[in-house]
Amino acid sequence: MTAVIDPPRTAPAPDVVRRILDTAKSEGRSALTAPEAKELCDLYGIPVPQEGVAKTADEAARLADGMGYPVVLKIVSPQILHKTEAGGVIVGVNSADDVKSGFQTIMDRARQYDPNAELIGVQVQQMLKGGQEVIVGSITDPSFGKLVAFGLGGVLVEVLKDVTFRLAPVSRADALTMLDGIQAAEVLKGVRGAKPANREALADIIVNVSNLVNDIPEIVELDLNPVFAREDGATAADVRVVLDFEPKAKRYLPSQDEIVRQMNRIMKPEAVAVIGASSEDGKIGNSVMKNLVNGGYQGKIYPIHPKADEILGYKAFKSVKDVPGEVDVAVFAIPAKFVAQALTEVGEKKIPGAVLIPSGFAETGNVEGQDEIVAIARKYDVRLMGPNIYGFYYTHKNLCATFCTPFDVKGKAALSSQSGGIGMAIIGFSRSTKMGVSAIVGLGNKSDIDEDDLLAFFEQDDNTQVVAMHCEDLKDGRAFAEAAKRVSKKKPVVVLKAGRTSLGARAASSHTGALAGNDKIYEDVLRQSGVVRARSLQDLLQFARGIPVLPTPKGENVVIITGAGGSGVLLSDSCVDNGLSLMAMPPDLDTAFRKFIPPFGAAGNPVDITGGEPPTTYKNTIRLGLEDERIHALILGYWHTIITPPMVFAKLVIEVKEEMKAKGIEKPIVASLAGDVQVEEAAEYLYDHGVVAYPYSTETPVAVLGAKYRWARAAGLL
Amino acid sequence: MTAVIDPPRTAPAPDVVRRILDTAKSEGRSALTAPEAKELCDLYGIPVPQEGVAKTADEAARLADGMGYPVVLKIVSPQILHKTEAGGVIVGVNSADDVKSGFQTIMDRARQYDPNAELIGVQVQQMLKGGQEVIVGSITDPSFGKLVAFGLGGVLVEVLKDVTFRLAPVSRADALTMLDGIQAAEVLKGVRGAKPANREALADIIVNVSNLVNDIPEIVELDLNPVFAREDGATAADVRVVLDFEPKAKRYLPSQDEIVRQMNRIMKPEAVAVIGASSEDGKIGNSVMKNLVNGGYQGKIYPIHPKADEILGYKAFKSVKDVPGEVDVAVFAIPAKFVAQALTEVGEKKIPGAVLIPSGFAETGNVEGQDEIVAIARKYDVRLMGPNIYGFYYTHKNLCATFCTPFDVKGKAALSSQSGGIGMAIIGFSRSTKMGVSAIVGLGNKSDIDEDDLLAFFEQDDNTQVVAMHCEDLKDGRAFAEAAKRVSKKKPVVVLKAGRTSLGARAASSHTGALAGNDKIYEDVLRQSGVVRARSLQDLLQFARGIPVLPTPKGENVVIITGAGGSGVLLSDSCVDNGLSLMAMPPDLDTAFRKFIPPFGAAGNPVDITGGEPPTTYKNTIRLGLEDERIHALILGYWHTIITPPMVFAKLVIEVKEEMKAKGIEKPIVASLAGDVQVEEAAEYLYDHGVVAYPYSTETPVAVLGAKYRWARAAGLL
Repeated sequence: MTAVIDPPRTAPAPDVVRRILDTAKSEGRSALTAPEAKELCDLYGIPVPQEGVAKTADEAARLADGMGYPVVLKIVSPQILHKTEAGGVIVGVNSADDVKSGFQTIMDRARQYDPNAELIGVQVQQMLKGGQEVIVGSITDPSFGKLVAFGLGGVLVEVLKDVTFRLAPVSRADALTMLDGIQAAEVLKGVRGAKPANREALADIIVNVSNLVNDIPEIVELDLNPVFAREDGATAADVRVVLDFEPKAKRYLPSQDEIVRQMNRIMKPEAVAVIGASSEDGKIGNSVMKNLVNGGYQGKIYPIHPKADEILGYKAFKSVKDVPGEVDVAVFAIPAKFVAQALTEVGEKKIPGAVLIPSGFAETGNVEGQDEIVAIARKYDVRLMGPNIYGFYYTHKNLCATFCTPFDVKGKAALSSQSGGIGMAIIGFSRSTKMGVSAIVGLGNKSDIDEDDLLAFFEQDDNTQVVAMHCEDLKDGRAFAEAAKRVSKKKPVVVLKAGRTSLGARAASSHTGALAGNDKIYEDVLRQSGVVRARSLQDLLQFARGIPVLPTPKGENVVIITGAGGSGVLLSDSCVDNGLSLMAMPPDLDTAFRKFIPPFGAAGNPVDITGGEPPTTYKNTIRLGLEDERIHALILGYWHTIITPPMVFAKLVIEVKEEMKAKGIEKPIVASLAGDVQVEEAAEYLYDHGVVAYPYSTETPVAVLGAKYRWARAAGLL
Repeated sequence: MTAVIDPPRTAPAPDVVRRILDTAKSEGRSALTAPEAKELCDLYGIPVPQEGVAKTADEAARLADGMGYPVVLKIVSPQILHKTEAGGVIVGVNSADDVKSGFQTIMDRARQYDPNAELIGVQVQQMLKGGQEVIVGSITDPSFGKLVAFGLGGVLVEVLKDVTFRLAPVSRADALTMLDGIQAAEVLKGVRGAKPANREALADIIVNVSNLVNDIPEIVELDLNPVFAREDGATAADVRVVLDFEPKAKRYLPSQDEIVRQMNRIMKPEAVAVIGASSEDGKIGNSVMKNLVNGGYQGKIYPIHPKADEILGYKAFKSVKDVPGEVDVAVFAIPAKFVAQALTEVGEKKIPGAVLIPSGFAETGNVEGQDEIVAIARKYDVRLMGPNIYGFYYTHKNLCATFCTPFDVKGKAALSSQSGGIGMAIIGFSRSTKMGVSAIVGLGNKSDIDEDDLLAFFEQDDNTQVVAMHCEDLKDGRAFAEAAKRVSKKKPVVVLKAGRTSLGARAASSHTGALAGNDKIYEDVLRQSGVVRARSLQDLLQFARGIPVLPTPKGENVVIITGAGGSGVLLSDSCVDNGLSLMAMPPDLDTAFRKFIPPFGAAGNPVDITGGEPPTTYKNTIRLGLEDERIHALILGYWHTIITPPMVFAKLVIEVKEEMKAKGIEKPIVASLAGDVQVEEAAEYLYDHGVVAYPYSTETPVAVLGAKYRWARAAGLL
């Protein structure tokens, strides 16, 4: 993938734009008039039908020559309102001569129609000649800000909602992907004898619309509908621009460096205060203390309690302000009503982070209470995690700053969840599958710290190789998209967006606005940001577990090697479902595989080694698959037989894998195991040794490989 | 659902049809001419543009009056080939007077153009007035036979392949479902100011096309493209009919009674012969004997071996012909080359079934060898299972007629697989999840016994409550569809169709033919047959396991009760994905739920009882959900807390469920458990007690409930 950078640009004629906006504002309008909209389009290079007023026949012909034929001629006179009635309109005029005679005809008829009318001249207007109808537009999303939309006009966009979105500003490369990003993209290539649409011209319009809405914050919705896309260009037949003069409040957003500095102190603290620490079993403040102490955290622990002198062997303090040394993070385990006071003390003590476990804020309707603590945090520059969370784990510091069960399988996957329930599912799944974890973080109400803050931290955290996030909304989708775009170039970012099926029925006054189902926006923007989207909780968990295990593939060629023909077919289905490319087997490689398999086995792809084969057949074919440079990833289908029992298979796979690794060859390998219950142990052995393997499933191993590929492609590694 | 039966009908004018076909055949044509096609359309009530030839102006006006305006007038003369050049065509004639003067004009011009031409008269043809373009057609599928297709014309059908299929004959009710069965169905209702299409007229055309292709086997493809669908009717503008005069060979198909009799003897035999039985460990014939003996099979076992006198304590025979009593089924455990001879002996012994474990037939290219044994089987009326299979299990007879590992968890799910590998996955999964099984059957090459034979058996097998089948192709899709349609009214039939993404690129000479991707046909026909389609191996297995556990819902109203708000959102997503209806909560029920939950909890649906609640809150809300008659199914979201630990939750759910059952209330309940690893035990307990429960997944429990609903709807129970 070659990165194409659009040239730098400056907004054209800001004074003209200002004048147009000021006029609209002073007239109390929330939409531009047609001439205003046309003026903007002209400024931004968005082709609209050309027009001009001619005072003479020659001038009319000159105008028409300039805009191309056919043209429409119309009388211009303040007194003649019903132009057609006056015989003052001629459509489809095809040559300069016809324009000249048409000019004369119209003037004559007008004079005849109303001898007293003031005849200013004849308007010459370009007549659009059809082509494919498309729609280009822009909306302003509460979370993502300005978005640009593209779709096919008519039934396709109105009934099938076949439309695609990108965050503005849209690069030229992005604009071209939009043309391919709709279901009916083939239509643009010209079907049923139609000429293809001019892709360059359409990309121009998309980029220019993007520039227009990006330069002018007051434009909240814009429709070019329809745009006629022809072989020789594209023209917007109708333009609609909706304005909003009330600027949106800016979100508090520290610099990236500042975020990283803050997050590092919070996530990897040298000293933790537990506000509401308790010796009493069953109290949240007791669970937090126990998890910190028993989890093996090596930093300083300061229990804060109004009365106690000591908790679990640690000296207690009445307030964080009494703590002698520096404190990096304060974990709150006190009821909501006491949070504001304690947070003020945390601010005064200059503690940079507060982990707010307590519930009883916005989620219960107590929005004021939440606003109050956010204001305190802003005043003292304290970052807030939560409220209404389980806390967080950072395993490489043995830090378990939560009231939940402790977790200690260190590894490379960082996970976050907006919901506590999902957080508990993450912990249970991680423990059950021995998934190596760097961090698990609860975000809850996200009064301050958001997914983009976490991304900034995980980006530079050497213990994290994949970030998997469950979220229900993104309070600042644009900041998230920007962070994800940056981070996903280095580390896979997996997102499970909950609530994806409850399409936002938002009031919208434009056509594009009405098209904006929330989920389609998430879908397109997440993809634009390089995010691997998980479709289900299991996807999120399995991707988080599997992605760091697999090496990054060096190319698109996937080969299936299977003992069971039946698994081969299902694995092929899964490849198609997950956008993987089954390599067309080159003849020499086909011959090489055939040497190892029975004559009735099938080479090609899948390589079907057939069921009754001994371990050597699996071994030889897998070795060949790893050795040949044209193959970039292997999918194995195992069939349980007495000749090659499950653990024998598992061990031979790892043996060949290690043998190849010693030669510097590393490729992603996933496996589907069909057999009696012994395949469960074999799958576990394989997974522990770097092969993503599942019993009784032909789809999950391929889905994990597909997720790795989707990331690698988005990161530009393929 | 009210069953609407179409009235009985007889084929119209078979003599006319015969004459048309004979002419085409005698002329060596594989397509009908336009007038022939029109004649057929007229016979079958398919509206095509009306036409007639008038010799006088009055006659022309009379014809035009009969067909409605506008009309087209054309000169009819053997000598005038270029009618337009001769001025012999007038389009858009709108009244009787204009027809009369037009007649005269055309005749005059023709006479002027060629004074010697023989002027037969003027053709008056109905002129189609637009409307929505749709396509109605028919293809002949190698497996399913005659299918009828419906789609929208133009880009929608050509680019988006938005088309739907049904097996012919199509009932009127089915035809109406086709109109709603395309993605862009809304277009027919009239969008962008268009008038709605006449549904009755379109259904008429579909039914009439279905009758036409069903009556006339020689018609293998048919296109009505486009059909103009208007508010006041629909007319096919162009008709294309493709013929094939070579009749297809009929498949061997015993009567249903005969199939059931044969299959009962095979699946529930009183006496089994094992051909190739062996005392030697590691031999297939030894494994089969051991599985029969150790599995606890109570019928007679006859080992067949050329030399041995006794195998595993059972008297051995040299041939099945030497066995004294009757034998119901012979299990073959001998190499392929000996099968024909042994099968002949089986035939001579009048054994009704042969289970052919050996491979080495069609799957290795030995098609001749397979044809040979099929011929022997037909000769002696022996039904063949296989070859190239693992055999079969019928647990309620303790019958394990396979060489694989034995399986003994008796239950209600019958499973079959075309592939041995998938069979082993079924066995492993079944054992691992303690899924109760009635039968597991390998079908392999399906030289004879097919999925429809199995369906006929399972239909009347009281030990089977759900049938789950993995298949790669259906050799006789039509017989399968008919069996499935019948059986699925009584028992759920789940099908995993492998190879679904490799769309059959079949040569086709019609438009409809080219549209026929294999998978779309499977999709529509399986749905038409009441089959619940599984999208993955895990779906097949989980549906087989879960469907018999859940009682059949009595209505569509689903309610989610959740401790974790986050799970509630994901469970709602899954409901939409699975076509389930979240009940709009009636105000009185909302009030009733609110009594049990904290003030900041959310009633509505999901009912969010919030995280920190004690067991009583779960209990009260679940009880209410079961008691209220307006609710038909419950989805539970559990969040692991110290206050309500996993097993406490599991037990209270079962307690309430049993309490309600005692009152005669039974509703399907599924559960998603979010928590630490203890939720795994809780999920197992729930499943064992009739609640389909999964840890770490919000999607699988809802998918199983969705599968149960899809079946119940198709079976007409909702």
